[in-house]
Amino acid sequence: MIKAGIIGATGYAGSEIVNILRSHEDVKISYLASHSYQGKEYSSVYPSFYGLVDDVLKEDDINKAAEVSDVIFLALPHGLASKVVTEDLIREKVIIDLGADFRLKDIAAYESWYKTEHMSPNLVSRAVYGLPEIHRKEIKGAHLIANPGCYTTCSILTLYPLVKFSLVEADSIIVDAKSGVSGAGRSEKIQNLFCEVNESVKAYSVASHRHTPEIEQELSLAGGKDVVITFTPHLIPMERGILSTCYARLKEGVSKAMVDEAYKECYKDEPFIRLTPHLPETRFVKGTNYLDLSYRIDERTGRIIALGALDNLVKGAAGQAVENMNIAFGFSESSALERIAVL
Amino acid sequence: MIKAGIIGATGYAGSEIVNILRSHEDVKISYLASHSYQGKEYSSVYPSFYGLVDDVLKEDDINKAAEVSDVIFLALPHGLASKVVTEDLIREKVIIDLGADFRLKDIAAYESWYKTEHMSPNLVSRAVYGLPEIHRKEIKGAHLIANPGCYTTCSILTLYPLVKFSLVEADSIIVDAKSGVSGAGRSEKIQNLFCEVNESVKAYSVASHRHTPEIEQELSLAGGKDVVITFTPHLIPMERGILSTCYARLKEGVSKAMVDEAYKECYKDEPFIRLTPHLPETRFVKGTNYLDLSYRIDERTGRIIALGALDNLVKGAAGQAVENMNIAFGFSESSALERIAVL
Amino acid sequence: MIKAGIIGATGYAGSEIVNILRSHEDVKISYLASHSYQGKEYSSVYPSFYGLVDDVLKEDDINKAAEVSDVIFLALPHGLASKVVTEDLIREKVIIDLGADFRLKDIAAYESWYKTEHMSPNLVSRAVYGLPEIHRKEIKGAHLIANPGCYTTCSILTLYPLVKFSLVEADSIIVDAKSGVSGAGRSEKIQNLFCEVNESVKAYSVASHRHTPEIEQELSLAGGKDVVITFTPHLIPMERGILSTCYARLKEGVSKAMVDEAYKECYKDEPFIRLTPHLPETRFVKGTNYLDLSYRIDERTGRIIALGALDNLVKGAAGQAVENMNIAFGFSESSALERIAVL
Amino acid sequence: MIKAGIIGATGYAGSEIVNILRSHEDVKISYLASHSYQGKEYSSVYPSFYGLVDDVLKEDDINKAAEVSDVIFLALPHGLASKVVTEDLIREKVIIDLGADFRLKDIAAYESWYKTEHMSPNLVSRAVYGLPEIHRKEIKGAHLIANPGCYTTCSILTLYPLVKFSLVEADSIIVDAKSGVSGAGRSEKIQNLFCEVNESVKAYSVASHRHTPEIEQELSLAGGKDVVITFTPHLIPMERGILSTCYARLKEGVSKAMVDEAYKECYKDEPFIRLTPHLPETRFVKGTNYLDLSYRIDERTGRIIALGALDNLVKGAAGQAVENMNIAFGFSESSALERIAVL
Repeated sequence: MIKAGIIGATGYAGSEIVNILRSHEDVKISYLASHSYQGKEYSSVYPSFYGLVDDVLKEDDINKAAEVSDVIFLALPHGLASKVVTEDLIREKVIIDLGADFRLKDIAAYESWYKTEHMSPNLVSRAVYGLPEIHRKEIKGAHLIANPGCYTTCSILTLYPLVKFSLVEADSIIVDAKSGVSGAGRSEKIQNLFCEVNESVKAYSVASHRHTPEIEQELSLAGGKDVVITFTPHLIPMERGILSTCYARLKEGVSKAMVDEAYKECYKDEPFIRLTPHLPETRFVKGTNYLDLSYRIDERTGRIIALGALDNLVKGAAGQAVENMNIAFGFSESSALERIAVL
Repeated sequence: MIKAGIIGATGYAGSEIVNILRSHEDVKISYLASHSYQGKEYSSVYPSFYGLVDDVLKEDDINKAAEVSDVIFLALPHGLASKVVTEDLIREKVIIDLGADFRLKDIAAYESWYKTEHMSPNLVSRAVYGLPEIHRKEIKGAHLIANPGCYTTCSILTLYPLVKFSLVEADSIIVDAKSGVSGAGRSEKIQNLFCEVNESVKAYSVASHRHTPEIEQELSLAGGKDVVITFTPHLIPMERGILSTCYARLKEGVSKAMVDEAYKECYKDEPFIRLTPHLPETRFVKGTNYLDLSYRIDERTGRIIALGALDNLVKGAAGQAVENMNIAFGFSESSALERIAVL
Repeated sequence: MIKAGIIGATGYAGSEIVNILRSHEDVKISYLASHSYQGKEYSSVYPSFYGLVDDVLKEDDINKAAEVSDVIFLALPHGLASKVVTEDLIREKVIIDLGADFRLKDIAAYESWYKTEHMSPNLVSRAVYGLPEIHRKEIKGAHLIANPGCYTTCSILTLYPLVKFSLVEADSIIVDAKSGVSGAGRSEKIQNLFCEVNESVKAYSVASHRHTPEIEQELSLAGGKDVVITFTPHLIPMERGILSTCYARLKEGVSKAMVDEAYKECYKDEPFIRLTPHLPETRFVKGTNYLDLSYRIDERTGRIIALGALDNLVKGAAGQAVENMNIAFGFSESSALERIAVL
Repeated sequence: MIKAGIIGATGYAGSEIVNILRSHEDVKISYLASHSYQGKEYSSVYPSFYGLVDDVLKEDDINKAAEVSDVIFLALPHGLASKVVTEDLIREKVIIDLGADFRLKDIAAYESWYKTEHMSPNLVSRAVYGLPEIHRKEIKGAHLIANPGCYTTCSILTLYPLVKFSLVEADSIIVDAKSGVSGAGRSEKIQNLFCEVNESVKAYSVASHRHTPEIEQELSLAGGKDVVITFTPHLIPMERGILSTCYARLKEGVSKAMVDEAYKECYKDEPFIRLTPHLPETRFVKGTNYLDLSYRIDERTGRIIALGALDNLVKGAAGQAVENMNIAFGFSESSALERIAVL
């Protein structure tokens, strides 16, 4: 039984970690912290936990969390994690950062896309990019895990076999992604009000979304050469879920069979990727750690359209964070992650 | 380890039973039947089960189900269960009927409200009304369990302590209930289309809803005298959840303290009822077996307003069915029912 | 052609007034003011007006508005209108206040329910309660019109004939109302975020909502004696619309025919009330100035259930405000108010 | 004053035509027909019209409609219009077909994509493709107008200036479109039920949607050479609205200024196209005949991302049909089409 601390426990991702860990038989929650709600009972912020998690929220101090925890989840806005993670902490504890600070290996890219100085550049090389399907071996025994973004998890995994096996033109990739509103977090902004989001769809951050370099980093790594993509996120009037519709031009001579083989090769033993004959819908993975994936070849244009769906708060955040913890500590990878989507 | 059969496994309640039982460590699903989808794979009807429950759906024949099952869940339209349940079946098996056929002890009332002849009136007295908070002792060892309706579970439990302890005028009770759309089932009707339901609210079956006599039966039993109520259901543009807003006039001299005491007395040890200081919201119990309950006294009018919220497909159907199974077979009552609502 | 100023033009009700007035052939918008967005273009706040209403928003100064306007709409939080409306203003201009300040004739009741001191008690008697179906004659020529609340318009009109003709027990009235989220206004609150409202239903302000005394005032006036009601508002996951489900016990000897006669007598010539054979649904009146109304008698309990539906931003706010303006200035009452609900 | 008949008046597009025409000062509705609801009152099918359009629905016979109409709108499933439109009819009347039968000039393409034989191939050349921004001159005086599809209107208009002025590589165009559920029509299908659509997003008809050849036809015409595109439609949990996110690679040397100039040149005088600085959202055009359009250039990849939003039932169907009627009959093009989106 290990002890887990959660800093940022009252955000949507944080609350999902709490929910998942409560059913984890090898983990006890030892520290719940919130900047905004310190001193309040957890269940007063999330009444779904009433009678179940009534702990008083503590100071968001990673060192105090570390005193009573083996693993610490950081669910913070970007720029904060890199201020508080230290060499000492990652020597003794496992830190799983759900923010962006340790994801990009290229610190200049981080500073350019996030328009802020990186506060602990020396730790970046120590961080493992926590995408188990690609970096499982490095995650085992890792002490600083950069949990991938929601869009990025969905988009990288949907495209990975195509790029790894060089089946598509590297400069032809477009990701048109659709996300539910929880991806925007629990912040008091006009644009997140029910009446501003409901019954509408929009694109945002066109050609400028910060998940772009993260997708490019991992696809470039997979393909062994620079991949530059066009990424367009959209906001959908639903709470949870991401669908990435990915377009790429197949290389000359690439057949359907070669594509099938590539996906099977990469994912046949993956516990959380389902290659489906039907087109994925976000409701089929809602509340679960699955990524559903399917693709179609457009013979008329020579393009492949690959579609991946996940729950942005589970496989796209909290679920994957727990999956990373499971791997790092040697638990069964799917412990506490076996939920099936309900209606 | 017992074996469970589900007849009507492709309705919304049926699929919820499948989902819950998959995580039940003492139960194995032995028979999945569907009238409409016989011969198809379960996951082709509900792709969220892809790779997890791919069984081919069988004939909806209770006797064939009985050959391989210890418990059989019937999730059928009213009128069908009473045609197929027999003395023999309930001698050896446990039948949990999610329909209305065995709920009403008064067969004439059944025939009048449901406008159909009852096909096995002799079995009605053998059936236990499966509301554990009121009939737990009878459920232990029962072989025919009439699982309560969704509105009725919510409304009865919200009002029960007030009636049992005679705190309110028996003729003053009004239940104004609000339900998500899944309560209407998975039928191809214009009125259930997205564009006909979304962005609107309506009452229906005003002064004529079939759950009325069921609520009256249990409240009359609790209070030891006839209770006649006004019940008005409403359709809410959401998938799951019921909120019952219950109104009653407090008897002369009844204080807040007496009300508190009544609720505490009835529910303090109940695993699935949460008396909350905050007003209940259906999202706090979504996907769970909890009923959240709170009340306010309107000093100006002498009325109490008691509010109960549950998930119509869980505590209002499949969850309570599994809870009844747990009790009947002597498992821990909350086995496989410990989910907490996610966002 | 008259000139209209709108103070608080960037709230949801304010924007609806702008929308309606743009199609009014006898009105020109002369002054658009906003506290929060002063100096910005109107269409930058509401891009649906892009290219159509690009005026720069002005200071929310009623006197500056008066310099260029014949009628001024005030769409402000309660407590503000009574600070700025003066004898001088209402001598020369028509002020239509969408807030609560001038609705209650009983100043002590106002101060008690709103927990604030009334800033111009002397003007209260000068104000006309702007519910045309009841006060049309006084509205003609009025200079200070207190536009009713959304819940109140719906609830009063649904119950009015029953009380006016003494068909129901005065102490038996319960209003269970359901409202879309726009009723909460355009404020940056966690509780109004999409993810906090969607897929859920809740009651709020139980036994304490400020619209209660307003309903009581008008029903008491109609019935000629004090009426005290229980009023419970609920929040529905939709943008617009209110449904009031009203319960009352019919007096001994009151027949269906007497009820029919009462409703017909009151509403047969009303342009915006539709007595419908079908139960009302808010979508049937969405975007329109109609109140749809129907009722059922529950013979088993002797109660009547009367249901009224309107659009909270139109008949419940902006539409009724324009209707009041039309009456006050002698325009056709339905000018610019003839929209029919779209899907 | 002309007389208008509507065949298929009870579908979503048909009801929108009724709604729009009721406010058209030069048109009187003379014939309302419905296959499914013949003999019923219109307002019993759409209660929002109660008291306003209570006409009894007639037989869906175009010849009977023609006896009393100057213009006939056909809102029928594909394959039906081409069975009933005749030379005689289009000699004397104006037929505006909202279906697909007369849109594609290439009859073989029609038969291949729609998998049906065309029943009046001789009339195809007589039909004008009713997209006013491109074919306004031909629409004037036309007698058979093929009203464009919803996706196609949105996608063609969003891309048209880029193709017309040869600013993008013809083989690089991808359209990723998102539509509300009303686009699927008012049919009793499981997949259109609230609980199957809500809280989810999916792609469908990937690489095979029938609107593809229609988009290609018009873009090929505009560019003077064959354009083949990838088109992917998605279903969004909302009632109305389409957003087309269009990707294309800019040709060498094409600057932002050249793009701006192209769009301005094409659309500066268009009454229903708004080139907006902000990214379009479907709610800004909901219920209106506007197409909002904006674009961004992704300098990193050399692509342009052009985004268009419209209401699928208005500019994408009924509104454009009335616009075509206005042009054909010489009315002001925006008659009855001046609604602004409400909240």
